[in-house]
Amino acid sequence: MVHAGNAKRLFGTSGIRGGFDRVNPMSSMNLGRALGTLLKGNGIVAVGTDARTSRVMLHHAFVSGLLSTGVDVVDLGIVPMPATGFQSSLASIDVGVIITASHNPPTDNGFKFFRNGREFLRSEEVEVEKHYFGQDFLVADWNLLGTKLFRNIRTPYMQRIKTMIVKRGGMNGSCKVLVDAANGAASNYTPHLLQSFGFSVVTVNSHQDGHFPGRPAEPSPRNLEFTMNMAAESDFAVTVCHDGDGDRLAVIDEKGRFIDQNRVIALFAKYELEEQDGGLVVVSIDTSNVIDEIVRSHGGEVVRRPLGSLQEELALRYDRIVFASEPWKPIFTELGGWMDGIAGAVRLAQLVVNEGDGSCIELMKQIPEYPMVRDFIACPDPLKKDFMQEVRKILPEKVSNIDKILEVDGVRVERNDGSYLLVRVSGTEPKARFYVGGRTQQSVDALAATAKKTMTTILDALEGNQS
Amino acid sequence: MVHAGNAKRLFGTSGIRGGFDRVNPMSSMNLGRALGTLLKGNGIVAVGTDARTSRVMLHHAFVSGLLSTGVDVVDLGIVPMPATGFQSSLASIDVGVIITASHNPPTDNGFKFFRNGREFLRSEEVEVEKHYFGQDFLVADWNLLGTKLFRNIRTPYMQRIKTMIVKRGGMNGSCKVLVDAANGAASNYTPHLLQSFGFSVVTVNSHQDGHFPGRPAEPSPRNLEFTMNMAAESDFAVTVCHDGDGDRLAVIDEKGRFIDQNRVIALFAKYELEEQDGGLVVVSIDTSNVIDEIVRSHGGEVVRRPLGSLQEELALRYDRIVFASEPWKPIFTELGGWMDGIAGAVRLAQLVVNEGDGSCIELMKQIPEYPMVRDFIACPDPLKKDFMQEVRKILPEKVSNIDKILEVDGVRVERNDGSYLLVRVSGTEPKARFYVGGRTQQSVDALAATAKKTMTTILDALEGNQS
Amino acid sequence: MVHAGNAKRLFGTSGIRGGFDRVNPMSSMNLGRALGTLLKGNGIVAVGTDARTSRVMLHHAFVSGLLSTGVDVVDLGIVPMPATGFQSSLASIDVGVIITASHNPPTDNGFKFFRNGREFLRSEEVEVEKHYFGQDFLVADWNLLGTKLFRNIRTPYMQRIKTMIVKRGGMNGSCKVLVDAANGAASNYTPHLLQSFGFSVVTVNSHQDGHFPGRPAEPSPRNLEFTMNMAAESDFAVTVCHDGDGDRLAVIDEKGRFIDQNRVIALFAKYELEEQDGGLVVVSIDTSNVIDEIVRSHGGEVVRRPLGSLQEELALRYDRIVFASEPWKPIFTELGGWMDGIAGAVRLAQLVVNEGDGSCIELMKQIPEYPMVRDFIACPDPLKKDFMQEVRKILPEKVSNIDKILEVDGVRVERNDGSYLLVRVSGTEPKARFYVGGRTQQSVDALAATAKKTMTTILDALEGNQS
Amino acid sequence: MVHAGNAKRLFGTSGIRGGFDRVNPMSSMNLGRALGTLLKGNGIVAVGTDARTSRVMLHHAFVSGLLSTGVDVVDLGIVPMPATGFQSSLASIDVGVIITASHNPPTDNGFKFFRNGREFLRSEEVEVEKHYFGQDFLVADWNLLGTKLFRNIRTPYMQRIKTMIVKRGGMNGSCKVLVDAANGAASNYTPHLLQSFGFSVVTVNSHQDGHFPGRPAEPSPRNLEFTMNMAAESDFAVTVCHDGDGDRLAVIDEKGRFIDQNRVIALFAKYELEEQDGGLVVVSIDTSNVIDEIVRSHGGEVVRRPLGSLQEELALRYDRIVFASEPWKPIFTELGGWMDGIAGAVRLAQLVVNEGDGSCIELMKQIPEYPMVRDFIACPDPLKKDFMQEVRKILPEKVSNIDKILEVDGVRVERNDGSYLLVRVSGTEPKARFYVGGRTQQSVDALAATAKKTMTTILDALEGNQS
Repeated sequence: MVHAGNAKRLFGTSGIRGGFDRVNPMSSMNLGRALGTLLKGNGIVAVGTDARTSRVMLHHAFVSGLLSTGVDVVDLGIVPMPATGFQSSLASIDVGVIITASHNPPTDNGFKFFRNGREFLRSEEVEVEKHYFGQDFLVADWNLLGTKLFRNIRTPYMQRIKTMIVKRGGMNGSCKVLVDAANGAASNYTPHLLQSFGFSVVTVNSHQDGHFPGRPAEPSPRNLEFTMNMAAESDFAVTVCHDGDGDRLAVIDEKGRFIDQNRVIALFAKYELEEQDGGLVVVSIDTSNVIDEIVRSHGGEVVRRPLGSLQEELALRYDRIVFASEPWKPIFTELGGWMDGIAGAVRLAQLVVNEGDGSCIELMKQIPEYPMVRDFIACPDPLKKDFMQEVRKILPEKVSNIDKILEVDGVRVERNDGSYLLVRVSGTEPKARFYVGGRTQQSVDALAATAKKTMTTILDALEGNQS
Repeated sequence: MVHAGNAKRLFGTSGIRGGFDRVNPMSSMNLGRALGTLLKGNGIVAVGTDARTSRVMLHHAFVSGLLSTGVDVVDLGIVPMPATGFQSSLASIDVGVIITASHNPPTDNGFKFFRNGREFLRSEEVEVEKHYFGQDFLVADWNLLGTKLFRNIRTPYMQRIKTMIVKRGGMNGSCKVLVDAANGAASNYTPHLLQSFGFSVVTVNSHQDGHFPGRPAEPSPRNLEFTMNMAAESDFAVTVCHDGDGDRLAVIDEKGRFIDQNRVIALFAKYELEEQDGGLVVVSIDTSNVIDEIVRSHGGEVVRRPLGSLQEELALRYDRIVFASEPWKPIFTELGGWMDGIAGAVRLAQLVVNEGDGSCIELMKQIPEYPMVRDFIACPDPLKKDFMQEVRKILPEKVSNIDKILEVDGVRVERNDGSYLLVRVSGTEPKARFYVGGRTQQSVDALAATAKKTMTTILDALEGNQS
Repeated sequence: MVHAGNAKRLFGTSGIRGGFDRVNPMSSMNLGRALGTLLKGNGIVAVGTDARTSRVMLHHAFVSGLLSTGVDVVDLGIVPMPATGFQSSLASIDVGVIITASHNPPTDNGFKFFRNGREFLRSEEVEVEKHYFGQDFLVADWNLLGTKLFRNIRTPYMQRIKTMIVKRGGMNGSCKVLVDAANGAASNYTPHLLQSFGFSVVTVNSHQDGHFPGRPAEPSPRNLEFTMNMAAESDFAVTVCHDGDGDRLAVIDEKGRFIDQNRVIALFAKYELEEQDGGLVVVSIDTSNVIDEIVRSHGGEVVRRPLGSLQEELALRYDRIVFASEPWKPIFTELGGWMDGIAGAVRLAQLVVNEGDGSCIELMKQIPEYPMVRDFIACPDPLKKDFMQEVRKILPEKVSNIDKILEVDGVRVERNDGSYLLVRVSGTEPKARFYVGGRTQQSVDALAATAKKTMTTILDALEGNQS
Repeated sequence: MVHAGNAKRLFGTSGIRGGFDRVNPMSSMNLGRALGTLLKGNGIVAVGTDARTSRVMLHHAFVSGLLSTGVDVVDLGIVPMPATGFQSSLASIDVGVIITASHNPPTDNGFKFFRNGREFLRSEEVEVEKHYFGQDFLVADWNLLGTKLFRNIRTPYMQRIKTMIVKRGGMNGSCKVLVDAANGAASNYTPHLLQSFGFSVVTVNSHQDGHFPGRPAEPSPRNLEFTMNMAAESDFAVTVCHDGDGDRLAVIDEKGRFIDQNRVIALFAKYELEEQDGGLVVVSIDTSNVIDEIVRSHGGEVVRRPLGSLQEELALRYDRIVFASEPWKPIFTELGGWMDGIAGAVRLAQLVVNEGDGSCIELMKQIPEYPMVRDFIACPDPLKKDFMQEVRKILPEKVSNIDKILEVDGVRVERNDGSYLLVRVSGTEPKARFYVGGRTQQSVDALAATAKKTMTTILDALEGNQS
């Protein structure tokens, strides 16, 4: 259960994930022991799973490990990831764990840990890793071993979302909604929430099956062809799609067109800023400047953080943050600090009805649609460090009219005209990626050309040095 | 809980059904007391429900009534009707009950009783009615009151179907199947059975919701428009559709066309006759002669029975019957005497793969498609009895080349050329219906004209007499 | 389900109780409908049962009635009455109900309702009775019918008690405790709580069985002969005994002697007054003056209320009350407003260890043991009203040195020397009872003679008038 | 998880047992993997536990291991060992497993495996050990991993026993029975079975608690002092006692006297021989000749087998065996091949009523009470092999009037007068044990003296050789 090329790291940007070689009964048990050791053998850990075929096996091994340290377990059964996040926000629960590989293939599985409603901070992960690799596991005395109880959290979790929706004005009307639940854990949540608010709900892929028979779990356009086709051929006001564990939301309009994630983020941010009278909007480094434009014009401020690290910001200044998001994964701080595609789906349907006159296309007109480019060049792992050092030095020299430079995860250069360029190296593949956006196709093309040329030049030089 | 116009009848052709005025906590409790009294306060009754919103309320009242007589209860939770039939075929269960209104609107609910794997005989219903209306309920002593246990029967029920499918040759290949589960109890069965046999399964309306948000529960062409559209616009080899409790199966081919029920029955009958070397095929009176043609050419014999009465025949000579069916509702006697749309769906997918080269259209070429007419004339309830008496007398005189006349439920005249005409009065509406079929459009049109004319003449005469 | 001689009253002094003629599926369903109507079809009712043989039958009928009004139900399973009281104190629960007949024979059953941690006030009972007898039941629309969830509350309830015990100093040591759980709902609570605090626990009659095979459910001396014998023949520091649903506590010392209830109340009151720096102690009218002596000497004040009515006082001025009790049934306001024999058992064991040096006899030396007399004369129901009117007039004239006269339930005369006399008529039998206590046998005998003579004289006169 | 001094053996005479060093999450998971590998990843394993504090932890690890091989699991929850044996006798279950350390201290736990209603044969254990130590575990593909279902088997198991009791004549009357359930898994079975047959049941230590608060789990006289005292001081016709998992039965008469195990075995054997018209009675080598006397006089034949090996004989010729037993552990072949202290308790109570006129003392008069001696001398492990070789050679020479010599487990010499002598070395301690019995104290004393002298002489010689 180790990351390639990093013998002492368990957690990636989104928890722990992998195939049987990495995520198996033995590693799961030790992970349970490590977490229980971190908790000093005290407290209660709530453990849920998504619907994958290895869920019972891994759950049992992990729970056995936890119990051996003296920690008690609350078994949540099959639940969406956001419900686990919610559970961890309750006073009675110390840590929430979901066994899921989110949108990975069905052969994989993994773990995500929550505390106080937000994902583990890196410092907490490091402590788990220390115990895991050091094999220094606490063993409770025979009469202090943990116990396990079952808890059904569907109703209280859905109630929390309902309360938020009601607070944001309830529904002025109704419309037809198509839900594609990816055969995952959200199948039993999003349709019923929408129904309870009076929507007319049709579902596709909403029977839970860990084989993901309907489509791959990732709600990307290439996996949603069938659903987009259905949306285009029918009369749904909007179509909402999830991944296997419900932290992700993808949106399709009534013409069957996939809505860019940055626009969905901007939309949610706009209304949360209005609702909460301004504040911070925290997004990951790879998001586009349409968010900045919308946020600024509604009295808010954008904070960009590395991918998989929004929780660090949430832990730091939760009270000032009105909304946070990575692409696909909205965090409504009104609810708590977890990514919630289910709440996102219901909130979006609410906006379609209340602000879009029952039309997703109408609603999205509020958020401009700007050109973007996302591409990469090959970059061998050993060169990544030097490559980024050079990028940091050279890139700013190649771009004019710079407004701001961000170095939280790669180098992001923002220009006065709202265009931007992000260069970063992949954490899992031998690639250097660049992301470009702007208000005109011209500005985007120019920046993309600059990026590619600069990156290639740097890399050529490094490879020359090397050989 | 009484039928209009019949103060002493509880059961209709498909068990007990109705809105809150007829099916409510009080009537359900008394029904439980009546059933327990029929059982003399001994034995075990298995009770399941479909997913309707009144399920828990009615279940609780009914179970309380049963327990008060001393009968024990096994709570099956939400299950499809066929799984309840299966349960009643086990030695450990005396009676199986499902609380469902099948394909009725969501405002309704009802009860269906099973014994030895088949629905209650009329004689058994009469005994329940006697206790119900007579209010002569057994009351057990305080220390002999019944108890309730839970049982999960999903796995053994699915295993029974799997065994049949394997016995019929397993799968030679695989294909894409679309399942429309009507947001009902089959959502958790048909997709998983198909998946276990290697099919690629996409579902629509497969999250359980007693509001039937996706479409009305009856799988008729007018309710399946969206699904037929999906089938036409995509590449599924076949599409299978259920009602709310899974006793019904509707089939849609890869062009999105709804397959006539008679042809589905003929198809199943053909292969069961081949599998079991001939025997009886029992069908309801309203089925077409394509069944006779196929059954006879495969060494079988057709028996026609009134609607809602196939169980009488099954109780009489089960061993000789290879297959039975009403429209939509196949009974595989290999499994047991219950109607099973779930087994039907898997069996049909098997035939598509093994006998149709992965094409439903190809498969169905084996079963001819003949013209049919189904129509009615208004017929006031008070005249129905005299009307049918006249029909019985006059109709045979109006039809030439008669091969056979059946009077089990209305009058059915079968001609030598394979054409037929059935005239019967509706049990629930002020209508007299006629069903006509034949191998040519000409013969059908002629018979239909004869039927309409004769029926109108008879009715005119009766109404003349009356006024 | 009506009280003899009072056609419009459901509730007695301790909820609703009776045999099948009064407490049956039909009356339980209507009671559920009445409660749901009182709640206007909204909210959540938590429903538990004790272990009686009719529990499942009545639970099902009652729950069906509740659901039909739209109210949701949380099913607690088999739980002690105090755990239901606890549950009703939680924000998420509107009403808590336990189906139990407490210490009645196993042929009986009944209902007790809780709100905000205390039993229903008489005004709330009256409202239930109004709907019940008026048969004006709310019926929810089909899509608003209630749902049912299960909840296991054993752990949080026991945690609440543990917190109180820890707050009162935990345990300074340990000792051997015998628990007689009356084969009731407390079997799964008191022994485990004691074990968790390190006591050495032996149990008798601690397997749950609604037949009450071990002994009648009432923990009175005549039913505890075997247990008192065991206590005498062995080396337990203390023996604690319950009734069927755990609201009652009886205490036996290490010599096998039954401790008078008034002394147990005085003991608990003393320590709660010390713990909470004085306040009110609310007790029922039939308790003895040893309580007053102890309470006053520890800075407290005694309030006496009619039997079955302490909740009225708790609703009025909860914050000032440090402890309340009827005989057998302690209410620790630190926990909440319910009678709790389980908490009482653990608290008593704590006092034995911490304040009695591991000896119940030693502990009880703090509370004086005074003589008492409890007797009755026959008094026909029709004369009761006039009889009490005369008692109220005449009795005070017959007693000297009166300190105080209480007329909350019968007439209680308290004298300056600490002796007292209570005369009241039974609510369930044709009897007039008198209770006498004092510091000397002489004062008690004298008061008892006065009581008997006065009562007989009054009654003779009334009967003379009558004939 | 290995036995001291035998690096390649997991199973002892009664399954696998030990403290955390041997029985822990890691070893349990590997044991699950080994068993699943033995089953080639197919089939269903039923897994129950007793009430020990490590039950959930070990269950989870073991189940995770099983699932990883593809085997499915049925979770039985907390059940007595005999119920697991029963479960393994059902067609739907391939192997039954109970996690228990039987009568060991609460710090221990362990595993016992059943197949076809009897314990694993040594050959089956060897195969498990091969996979366990060889670490050659099957790993199922991701989509073939096992699943877990819950099943409540209390009712069908108790029904099986009831059927046997009814077949043996039901009850002619009733009496008072005291049950000491050792705070173990039988707490929820024996009292309720007895109650259902009309006995008046009082229980002690019948709340389940894995700490064994009431007494050590082994029902030996030294642990039953309190219970024997209760029996003596009260009026129970008989007292039955269990160990932690209910395979053991100890019997106490109405005077509080512990009945010798050999007499209980002889009693059960007698009535089974009468019931089944003779047959084999299989007992362990350490049982006394009173069994032979009774069995022979009732047309039966005694077969003696090594301790912990009766299942080998049961697998060989089940149909001819009417009863089998080790001390404490009766096997009623009418039920199946498992040791069943619960069935034993009910059967014994039946005999007390039907054959003893409601008196245990009266009943036991049928079985003579003969003198016995059981003792040991120290014998170092390394000498055990040579010691037994010498015993086999010399012992027969020292005893006169030999009728038969048995060498299945140690050396057992039976004499013509019914006296016998068994010498064997302990499997777990550095001891050589001898067991002597006979009809007169004189013959027993003489044989004991011979045994001790011969054993000492042999050992002295061996130790001399060694030094």
